[in-house]
Amino acid sequence: MSEYIEHDRDKISVGIVEKKLFTFAEPPDEMVLESGARVGPLTLAYETCGTLNEDKSNVILILHALSGDSHVAGYYTPDDEKPGWWDNMVGPGKGIDTDKYFIVCSNIIGSCMGSTGPCTINPKTVLPYGLDFPVVTIGDMVEAQKALMVHLGVKKLLAVVGGSIGGMQVLEWCIRYPEMVVSAIPLASTTKHSALAIAFNEVARQAIMADPNWNDGEYYFGPKPDMGLAVARMIGHITYLSDESMRLKFGRRLQDKSDFSFNFDADFQVESYLRYQGKKFVERFDANSFLYITKAGDYYDLEKQHGDGSEVKAFSKMAAAFLVVSFTSDWLYPTYQSRAMVKAMKKNGLDVSFCEIEAEWGHDAFLLPNARLTAVIRGFLERVFNQSPK
Amino acid sequence: MSEYIEHDRDKISVGIVEKKLFTFAEPPDEMVLESGARVGPLTLAYETCGTLNEDKSNVILILHALSGDSHVAGYYTPDDEKPGWWDNMVGPGKGIDTDKYFIVCSNIIGSCMGSTGPCTINPKTVLPYGLDFPVVTIGDMVEAQKALMVHLGVKKLLAVVGGSIGGMQVLEWCIRYPEMVVSAIPLASTTKHSALAIAFNEVARQAIMADPNWNDGEYYFGPKPDMGLAVARMIGHITYLSDESMRLKFGRRLQDKSDFSFNFDADFQVESYLRYQGKKFVERFDANSFLYITKAGDYYDLEKQHGDGSEVKAFSKMAAAFLVVSFTSDWLYPTYQSRAMVKAMKKNGLDVSFCEIEAEWGHDAFLLPNARLTAVIRGFLERVFNQSPK
Repeated sequence: MSEYIEHDRDKISVGIVEKKLFTFAEPPDEMVLESGARVGPLTLAYETCGTLNEDKSNVILILHALSGDSHVAGYYTPDDEKPGWWDNMVGPGKGIDTDKYFIVCSNIIGSCMGSTGPCTINPKTVLPYGLDFPVVTIGDMVEAQKALMVHLGVKKLLAVVGGSIGGMQVLEWCIRYPEMVVSAIPLASTTKHSALAIAFNEVARQAIMADPNWNDGEYYFGPKPDMGLAVARMIGHITYLSDESMRLKFGRRLQDKSDFSFNFDADFQVESYLRYQGKKFVERFDANSFLYITKAGDYYDLEKQHGDGSEVKAFSKMAAAFLVVSFTSDWLYPTYQSRAMVKAMKKNGLDVSFCEIEAEWGHDAFLLPNARLTAVIRGFLERVFNQSPK
Repeated sequence: MSEYIEHDRDKISVGIVEKKLFTFAEPPDEMVLESGARVGPLTLAYETCGTLNEDKSNVILILHALSGDSHVAGYYTPDDEKPGWWDNMVGPGKGIDTDKYFIVCSNIIGSCMGSTGPCTINPKTVLPYGLDFPVVTIGDMVEAQKALMVHLGVKKLLAVVGGSIGGMQVLEWCIRYPEMVVSAIPLASTTKHSALAIAFNEVARQAIMADPNWNDGEYYFGPKPDMGLAVARMIGHITYLSDESMRLKFGRRLQDKSDFSFNFDADFQVESYLRYQGKKFVERFDANSFLYITKAGDYYDLEKQHGDGSEVKAFSKMAAAFLVVSFTSDWLYPTYQSRAMVKAMKKNGLDVSFCEIEAEWGHDAFLLPNARLTAVIRGFLERVFNQSPK
């Protein structure tokens, strides 16, 4: 069983952070994507916390998952109700200690949280891109992050850290820029989605595209495909949890009722929870971005793209020290996928630590406060920081 | 690993069968449902195969799942491409041997395959019921089947057999009519849906209700909520399979392409499969029926309804000999649920056999040809038939 740490904003926080923008790939020097398409200019929204040390040897790049953003820790204003999405891990004295390290987190391209994506205005048409935005890959996301590192004058990354499709970006960083990456922490991740993971993503995409308001991606001036996006998010939420965690969290408990409604209202708490999650999500996320980012995750195939189908060959191009973490109840990115990754790393003589954490919260576990996860990440970072040439 | 038997229609079949209709609960003697609502008249579509013996001691009632119907085996016409849904199990010399037993299978109320449900004309309005059709329960389905048994003059059931929510009907038969049921075979079933199972059903229902064509269930004279129903079916199909079966069946294989499309077409075979399954389903199934039947499954809670929350107490009211079957890769109705059922049966001193079958096809396994399943069912039925008083 995991131990959980209560988060208390007033006690420990990086405090107020600021979202910054970095624009690059100005035409005619557009970015050439993996698909061959060209796009530009591109903007990345990013945030930093902690202090860059003199020799710039304390940089940790954090890579977010599907619905994340650059707001990894702290608050934009003192009145914010909630801190950034990984505030339980990133802060003074926390697992990723902002007293020691300089943290950078940027919103991925294709998203809708400040970086360029399908909801951005296309300068050529002065209308939102919609489906004219090219399909981007995990590799394209990493190339954009690399441009940001150049802009920030960062030449070495003490660590790249990310969960889920953030973990795919971690692996892609290691293979594209082995000389830059000292260490890497892929959490609850994989070198490629299983058929099951693709299937869930596809049904979620179909739910969005089935919504007449989706209108082939052109909905920015009219009603949005909120119903479709809500259903897509509900599907996602089921996959992020686990049979066990849903039993503990909801069981068959009824919602504000002593008996069944005998209609199609939400009778069970789990139904209300899903409806609420769906509704909340449409207020903050763009349906087209959901399509683009899930597609990027499904396309990712490390061994096919970098190892002619061999995981061992793909990892032979990497040099980082690895900490691979999986969670027992994660059935979307199951432990066996992390183990396969670790095996291929070991076959290449890479410095790899593997930790399977007992947790009942399914795939979501990597985002939740967990004393063991915090300790493992803290210890690993301390070791690589102390070992790295100053 | 399971062994599979090839089905060959020309070799073994019950041959031509006929769908019959039985109407009851004529007003003013309407059926009173568990919710307290009244409905009538009600029609059940049913089929029989095999021959009823003189003392009527060879009747097996088969209870279908969500999308099933009365057409359990054989063909309606010699030109039919496909036989009934359980033709691999039901027929001359098969696991449920029509040379020995008289098989009855009726379409559940709430469905759309000939029995009364939301798509039936409401005699009071001369329009399809839509959401005016009352929410029915597993118990209501069983009461309708009981009326059919009375109509057929059947007083003893050698066996009641069903998988998934058909298995819930099996249990409900055993508790409502213990004096009638000699033996019972719940397959891949449970005494109550887990939060996970409810969650999947709820998202599927939301997908239907999010389709503007659903129109609060009034769509019978206009465009149907095909997109929503297709998404609902796709969600279902994922849950019927398993991580392992999807890997074997699809892996990451691409669909008729050497590379990715870099758009939102179906790139992977698993995507095409799901789209096809969704499309095929809307041609034969009614969206409202999907809502009603999944809700009935979610409401079912044997111990709450019949045991004051105690499974042991609920089973104390039963008298049948049981064969409980689960499948290793079924994560929708997992083995632990069947084991809990068996434990409660044993505590009541019931005659119970339990069989967990090694199968990689997930929840779908109970419908697929499987030599072990066939042998286990055949053996159990032979024993109870030989033991039962003639």
